[in-house]
Parts: sequence; structure tokens; C-alpha cells
Amino acid sequence: MSEVPFETVSTHRCFGGTVGFYKHTSRVNNCTMKFAVFTPPQAERGRVPVLYYLAGLTCTEETFMIKAGAQRVAAELGLMLVAPDTSPRGVPLPGDSDSWDFGVGAGFYLDATQEPWSRHYHMYSYVTAELPALIDAHFPADPKRQGIFGHSMGGHGALTIGFKNPGGRYRSISAFAPIAAPKRCPWGQKAFNGYLGPDQSAWDAYDATELVRKVKDARSRPPLLIDQGMSDQFLQTQLHPHLFEEAAREVGYPFTLRRQQGYDHGYYFISTFMEDHLRHHAQILG
Amino acid sequence: MSEVPFETVSTHRCFGGTVGFYKHTSRVNNCTMKFAVFTPPQAERGRVPVLYYLAGLTCTEETFMIKAGAQRVAAELGLMLVAPDTSPRGVPLPGDSDSWDFGVGAGFYLDATQEPWSRHYHMYSYVTAELPALIDAHFPADPKRQGIFGHSMGGHGALTIGFKNPGGRYRSISAFAPIAAPKRCPWGQKAFNGYLGPDQSAWDAYDATELVRKVKDARSRPPLLIDQGMSDQFLQTQLHPHLFEEAAREVGYPFTLRRQQGYDHGYYFISTFMEDHLRHHAQILG
Repeated sequence: MSEVPFETVSTHRCFGGTVGFYKHTSRVNNCTMKFAVFTPPQAERGRVPVLYYLAGLTCTEETFMIKAGAQRVAAELGLMLVAPDTSPRGVPLPGDSDSWDFGVGAGFYLDATQEPWSRHYHMYSYVTAELPALIDAHFPADPKRQGIFGHSMGGHGALTIGFKNPGGRYRSISAFAPIAAPKRCPWGQKAFNGYLGPDQSAWDAYDATELVRKVKDARSRPPLLIDQGMSDQFLQTQLHPHLFEEAAREVGYPFTLRRQQGYDHGYYFISTFMEDHLRHHAQILG
Repeated sequence: MSEVPFETVSTHRCFGGTVGFYKHTSRVNNCTMKFAVFTPPQAERGRVPVLYYLAGLTCTEETFMIKAGAQRVAAELGLMLVAPDTSPRGVPLPGDSDSWDFGVGAGFYLDATQEPWSRHYHMYSYVTAELPALIDAHFPADPKRQGIFGHSMGGHGALTIGFKNPGGRYRSISAFAPIAAPKRCPWGQKAFNGYLGPDQSAWDAYDATELVRKVKDARSRPPLLIDQGMSDQFLQTQLHPHLFEEAAREVGYPFTLRRQQGYDHGYYFISTFMEDHLRHHAQILG
């Protein structure tokens, strides 16, 4: 069993560390998947805390590394950054490229149960199990100091994955403009209908607002950080942070939801507050 | 004469300032041109120093704003950043898209004298006259505190434009991996042949290594900063910083050429040293 675990596509020196792009055969997604890793300079001396960043609709494994401006502070704090792609690719399924909010580039960080999506779309298992196992085996990441964050669809992914894997698996969580109540917005309804089927009882397992209500020891969890731009073009129709806010407050989950005046949904917003998020994670991960 | 000077394509709040994308009818290029501006928060209180950034082959007015990570420090230092496109577009000429190093995306910051390029390709006049006049009239830029920098083809542009317009027009200059002796590399020879014709005596006017020899008061000019990655895939064949270094040293032009081990030609390199360049300009512009 001498299977090659992954191939290096390219590496680039950046802030004294390395941005690398890689690809491998994913067992759970049954296709080739790409991912990016920023390895900070501190990793030369031992294992470092690792943050998984989940990107939004239409993004790829490159988006975060190119646009978010995270490497400077990650190099200062000694954080590894891992950015997977946002869906399976290269395995054409009927209708997977008809719209930008479903199928390719729109995996929604769940395990699809409906044909034909269930053949490949297992981004939940990919992000929570297969990819971390690869990272822990081949990169100097410390699996005991692992956090997760993301943007929009990836903010949804970070919150739901964080809540579903308590007890230290993801010790720190944050999100930029997350789809905070996907059951109740068009993007989420379309994705859940397609990937999970019309039975809405299956949807709660991937809805941050539903999941936060069920977090055991909610009051003793590390605080969550969410930034939301108030000029975000999707705020009113798709994101619904106020629904999450109400639910989190009810159960006493510690969180900070910052409403940023004038900021929109894009990476000019994300890059502005990236440093705060990285410091939030570093403080919790130690 | 109530011509609209420019149209706003989009604006985005970023680090307390604004990234804006604009388009206008360029008289010197005889086509629609796009440009980007980062206006720092300090501009609410008066005119601020302004840096023109010239991008490299294949880039657009978006590249710098998306990839360079400059807004954070520009917002701190109160610098306006202006990024033009790299060539005329939307005016098809025979052969203008056959290669990525000539024609569209490859204007080389010169005024073409050869047909058909001379109908549109006047990026030198555009960058040095038409665009600054528009910026000074409609944005809170201080034309007395103006600097220029760029990358690769844009580093060539920054050096040559800086040397050709002494006496305060561009008080500060810097470059990332510039094409430092275009007369003596394939990219430059192809561009100069096409845009300026085979008579090489016309080429010296756009060659940084030739121009630095002719700078009057070279020894009293503000220092120049150049960063060059030593794993740059184009270093040996296209960039030739050592030729510029020799010429600048001969005439006593003050400069720092930093050879950065392990860094390549891309924006992971540029973003790493962007802060140093912005502080270099801010120190000179005051």
C-alpha cells in the first residue's frame, strides 16, 4: 500500500513561510480534490496550531490564499492555514453547473444523501475527517489545537462543523457573513432540497441556528466571533444572523456578532477583519 | 462641455477607506480605460499623498487591489493608491491577443509609434498625464506628493517613468522584480520592436538601465527601493537587475536592491514586502 498521499501543484514563499497548492484522490468524494496550505515559519521547529478556512459559493482552494491577506498575521502568530476547495470537481453530474449556488463550487459542507449527489458530494466528511487525517500525517499541524472559520457558505460550514464536533475537535470557531439559518433562506433551501431531499427533518443537522440550540455545555464553550457587513447585498435575503443571534443567546452560547457599517460581502470586507479573527483563534488555541 | 469625467463601476469599504473601480473614455488611448483607487480614511480631512502602482503582464486594474494586500498599511499611513489597467482594451488590433506578452495586457507603459499600435497604445502618456489629471481633479490626491511603483513590466514602468519625470513629479520610486534592462531581454525586445520599431535608438527612452545613466543630480535623488526574489522564474532570462545595479552605481543613484531568498515572481512575494515599499514611499512623501 504505497499510494501517493498527495501531489504538490506549486509552492510559493510568503512572509517567511510557504503557500502550497496540492491535490489528491479523495476517497469520500470519489474524485481528485485540491487544497491549499500556508505553513508558517514556526513550523520548522515543531507542530503548530491549524485553522481550516471554508470558502463561499463559487470559490476554490485558491480564493482564501489570494484574497484574504491572512498570511502576514498567521506568520506572526505561528498558525497553519488549510483551505479546501468548495465542492468535488471533474466528475460531471447532470445540472451541476447550471447555477452558481448549487453543484460545482457549492458543496455546502454536508454529506449528500440524494442521487446523484451522494456519489461525490461528501464535503462534511471530507473537511472533518479525510482532509485533517492527511494534514496531520504529512504537515506539521497539531491536531489538538485545531480551529475552523469561513465565509458565507463557508461560514455556515464553520459554524455547523464546529457545533457538531465539540469536545476539542474544533476548539475555536469564527465566521464572516455566514449563512446562519440555511433552512430559512433560498440558498440553503435549494441546497438542502437537492443534496438532502425534501424531508426537512434531515436539514436541522446542517443548520447553525438549529444546532446551536443543542450544544451541550453551551455556556462553557470558547467564545465565537462573527463579523457581518451591514452593506452586504445578501444580508436581508440569505444570511439571517439575527436568527442565529437569538438562538445562541437563548442557550447562553458565548459569542460576539459585530455589525460592520458600510462593508459588503466580499474579500475587501474579509481582509479588513482577518487579523481580528486570526488573533481570536490564536488566543483560544494558545 | 459637461462631459462625464468617469463612471463608478463599484466601490467597497476596506480598512476604513474605500476601494473603487472606475472607467472613463481615454483621449490618449482612444478607448475606454478602467482604473482602481484606494482612498484612505485620512482623505476625509484633506488631500493625501498618492502612489501609482503599475501592474505586470496579463494583469488588470483589479490585480493589485485583490492580491497585493496594500490597503491595510495605506490606511494606516494615509496613502491613496491608484492602479490603472495594463493596456488599452476593447479596440481589437490584428495580433493583439496572440500572445500574453504583447498587445492586450502588455502595454509596456510607452507611447507606441508604429501602426497599428500607435492608434491606441499610449500608456506612457496615459499614466503620466491623462490619468493623474483626472485623479487630481476628482479625488483628494495631493499632486505635490506623488510616487510610483510597480511589478515586473510595471516595475519597468515605474523606474522609467520615475527617471523621465524628475523634479518632484514622482518624488518616490520603488519596484518589485522589474524588467530592469528591457533592451536586453526577450520581453522587452519583442515589445519595443512591435511598438517602437526596429530602430533601437528609440528604445533607450524606455530602458531603465539606459535612463538611470542620464539622470541629472543622480546622487541627490531620493533613494530607490527594489525587491527581487531569488527563486523568480524570470530572473535569469528577463529581469537583469544586475545590469541596472551596475549602471545606477556608476552614476551614484542611491538605491537599495534587496535579493530575497526563496521568493518567486508572484503576488505571494509582492504581498510579503508590500509594507516595506509603502513605508519607503510614505517616508519620502512625508
